[in-house]
Amino acid sequence: MQVVAGTRDRLLTATNESFRRRGYNGTSLKHVTTAARAPTGSLYHFFPGGKDELTRAVLTTSGAAYRELFEAVADEASSPEAAVTDFFDAAATVLEETDFIDPCPIGTVAREVASTNEALRQATEQVFTSWIDAARARLTAAGIDTEEAEQLATMLVAALEGSFVLARAKRDANVLRDTGRVMRRVVEEARAGVSSR
Amino acid sequence: MQVVAGTRDRLLTATNESFRRRGYNGTSLKHVTTAARAPTGSLYHFFPGGKDELTRAVLTTSGAAYRELFEAVADEASSPEAAVTDFFDAAATVLEETDFIDPCPIGTVAREVASTNEALRQATEQVFTSWIDAARARLTAAGIDTEEAEQLATMLVAALEGSFVLARAKRDANVLRDTGRVMRRVVEEARAGVSSR
Repeated sequence: MQVVAGTRDRLLTATNESFRRRGYNGTSLKHVTTAARAPTGSLYHFFPGGKDELTRAVLTTSGAAYRELFEAVADEASSPEAAVTDFFDAAATVLEETDFIDPCPIGTVAREVASTNEALRQATEQVFTSWIDAARARLTAAGIDTEEAEQLATMLVAALEGSFVLARAKRDANVLRDTGRVMRRVVEEARAGVSSR
Repeated sequence: MQVVAGTRDRLLTATNESFRRRGYNGTSLKHVTTAARAPTGSLYHFFPGGKDELTRAVLTTSGAAYRELFEAVADEASSPEAAVTDFFDAAATVLEETDFIDPCPIGTVAREVASTNEALRQATEQVFTSWIDAARARLTAAGIDTEEAEQLATMLVAALEGSFVLARAKRDANVLRDTGRVMRRVVEEARAGVSSR
């Protein structure tokens, strides 16, 4: 049973990495099974719905992994502001260490499926909403009111996704370090606004 | 000759729209020639390099068109800050009026080719750099020093690209209106910082 479970994990990992390199439409199931060293039939055994079901599983697992990473960074940061630069700086390092493949399979899938695959669009929405919820909870805990916290949380996720596009197009991870600093000031000013009211 | 010129334009328009709906890898040349009502051979007549050359032409023309739009919005806006919300609000309206297809073919191509096609990656970098240059020029003209203006200009383009991803995933153009408001405050505070020095 362990070998079987291993195959499923390898399929998820291979799909995740293929999305990050080639995107959703650039990923073939043939390539996934080859990269995962898995028989073609095993893919339909674990994911009877084929590419769509495999993609949903990748979105869900990597979405949850990123959320956990965000919570861990926020727990360890010296302040909510520091959490912002810590997270963007860590993402910059990941980009550099992985030769600028996309850090976020969710972003590329989201962009490719938004107008063509309604079920997968909804799956990407769920992931983004869970990230925005996590960031908003941290911002309200830091004293920012709910409406502003929602706006800032959305802004933080948008800044991260947009920075991935620019950093990869320019092959320059400093895009992330710079936008992280701008976002940190935004959070600082929102909190200063709270304390001066 | 007019008919011939029309065919080239129709091929560019059809490719642009296909990128916005289906992305780069989701776009086939067969679909492009069909949508453009053009014989298959005409594509190689106008673009001997095939999909890569066609894609470069789409990136260049739509990159230039967006830069012109940005300059026009900035010229008409009552202030540099107002230009930010004017631009993001206009993008939100475009999304709503086009059933949430991607407003930006450059962003989706950038994400899909960054790790797989070096020549096209460079073409996307050139477009983003030209936009960042245009925004930086407006910000320095508004009194912000060059280094901060470069950082803010990069942030503005990242915010726009990231907001397109979230707005399409959520089918909610208010993402753009909200992030535009956050970005407007960022520019306001950068200018206030200048005047208080």
